[in-house]
Amino acid sequence: MKIGILGYGNLGRGVESAVRQNDDIELAAILTRRDPATVKPATEGVKVYSVDEVEKLKGEIDVLVICGGSATDLPKQTPEYAKYFNVIDSFDTHANIPSHFANVDKVAKDNGHVALISCGWDPGMFSLMRLYGSIALPEGNDYTFWGKGVSQGHSDAIRRVNGVKDGRQYTIPVDLALAAVRNGENPQLTTRQKHTRECFVVAEEGADLKQIEEDIKTMPNYFSDYDTTVHFISEEEMQRDHAGIPHGGFVFRTGVTGLEKEHKHVIEYSLKLDSNPEFTSSVILAFARAIHRLSGEGQVGCKTVFDIAPAYLSPLSGEELRAHML
Amino acid sequence: MKIGILGYGNLGRGVESAVRQNDDIELAAILTRRDPATVKPATEGVKVYSVDEVEKLKGEIDVLVICGGSATDLPKQTPEYAKYFNVIDSFDTHANIPSHFANVDKVAKDNGHVALISCGWDPGMFSLMRLYGSIALPEGNDYTFWGKGVSQGHSDAIRRVNGVKDGRQYTIPVDLALAAVRNGENPQLTTRQKHTRECFVVAEEGADLKQIEEDIKTMPNYFSDYDTTVHFISEEEMQRDHAGIPHGGFVFRTGVTGLEKEHKHVIEYSLKLDSNPEFTSSVILAFARAIHRLSGEGQVGCKTVFDIAPAYLSPLSGEELRAHML
Repeated sequence: MKIGILGYGNLGRGVESAVRQNDDIELAAILTRRDPATVKPATEGVKVYSVDEVEKLKGEIDVLVICGGSATDLPKQTPEYAKYFNVIDSFDTHANIPSHFANVDKVAKDNGHVALISCGWDPGMFSLMRLYGSIALPEGNDYTFWGKGVSQGHSDAIRRVNGVKDGRQYTIPVDLALAAVRNGENPQLTTRQKHTRECFVVAEEGADLKQIEEDIKTMPNYFSDYDTTVHFISEEEMQRDHAGIPHGGFVFRTGVTGLEKEHKHVIEYSLKLDSNPEFTSSVILAFARAIHRLSGEGQVGCKTVFDIAPAYLSPLSGEELRAHML
Repeated sequence: MKIGILGYGNLGRGVESAVRQNDDIELAAILTRRDPATVKPATEGVKVYSVDEVEKLKGEIDVLVICGGSATDLPKQTPEYAKYFNVIDSFDTHANIPSHFANVDKVAKDNGHVALISCGWDPGMFSLMRLYGSIALPEGNDYTFWGKGVSQGHSDAIRRVNGVKDGRQYTIPVDLALAAVRNGENPQLTTRQKHTRECFVVAEEGADLKQIEEDIKTMPNYFSDYDTTVHFISEEEMQRDHAGIPHGGFVFRTGVTGLEKEHKHVIEYSLKLDSNPEFTSSVILAFARAIHRLSGEGQVGCKTVFDIAPAYLSPLSGEELRAHML
């Protein structure tokens, strides 16, 4: 199976790296909006094309992995490229998923392709856990916690503050809240009770540190509803201690069963990830395998992780899966 | 959707109770090998039939939930009843799954029905977690731990020991092993390092307690490869403290990503269940919903949890799932 990568940033490089861990998948091409000559793939022999040359690749790749951002790239790119290929993306603006789905579904159907949107870990694996939790315990409560990990959006928000040269934000779940959920207490948790936010900031020379801290902590939507701490560090410390992109989180489902609802149950799923984009890429590649298979069966249209029977994700046969994993 | 229950033991009663938590599912009939007059359902108005009357029920139920034991009941019952109905079971003898699958698949296909075997939490949810773990982290290690919980098989084994009136066995995962796995150390663990076994025994009057303890601890397959503790208790203590059937466990996948395999990841899924049979029943009922839908689409043959797209498990529509769970 041959894949193409559109966009050679953190996610695109993660997909390239994940290809090496999947013997049945080959990286056929990288598409870029930049000058192709400036993109140097880590994989020998992989051709780099400008997005303007996309027509050339028709028929050459089985699935195009679209590695753009959710804010402005994917709403345009995924429907656009579903004209030419089976496509998969990691669209993660939860509120806009229904409209993105509708746009992609129409183009995919009109052109006989399969698309899958919102793949990765949240949305993605966490979504699956929310669904499986809800069917296993129909009477219950859901809890999703994120972190400890770097939030790209919040880090960007810090960098826009006056006097800030660089910033990194960690989202951290509150231990007491985790413990209460894990203990089956079904707590009602406010935003503040679920997560704290820890910021590391490199200030510009002569900047007003008090003001920066104040500006961050009171920023609406991003920080004002949270207990936020701000640490000022040097550029060297930022490079040395905060270069990674770790993330993770927890999905809980707690609920009851029994004629008198007398039995409590707790389902917990957690991820601890050294590299958010590499894990996301790895999940995406497995779902790319699945939509290639669905396409081979003649299916068309837009799917999500909910629509994929798990067996389609694995390179193993049904017999092998039943013998070794069931 | 109308279901039938075959076998009114712990699991059958669990299914009956789970029906009340699923508005789209109705309990239409209970089939029993006992005298139907001796079976008193908790649900008003539900008819109880002898298994000899099975022909009467053809066309009256959408899925038959077969609640027998894996050792001798299910290998006969599931293929037998796949003649008449869509069927689902919780067959959990892992080594015999391939042959059970083949037997059920043939009958289901010959009679135009859908069957699903080996449903519940292990096999079942834990199997799904092993599969999802393997595709998210193709280079890695799997770990499954069980407990703390009551093992029916090991409790039965204790009861067969000379001088034992009653017995209950708890399987307990070893904290140090869990911590090492959770920490990404990829330990090689022996049977003894993964689980301990704790036994509560009511001895017959005048029995040789030393001998009972010796007989349990040295029992091959069941106890000799484990660190086992034996507690002698009174019948009253057994009734008071060990009447429940709790269980649970952990599935881990640990692995690496990156061009230099430099990033570590840990996926952890755990269950803490007050009632093993009720949780199992609840999962089974959701998969019963799925095979009813597949049957409505004209599918036939034997399936496992790997073959079911998650969306089929939920009473919610695709639109609702995408809007609220993705």
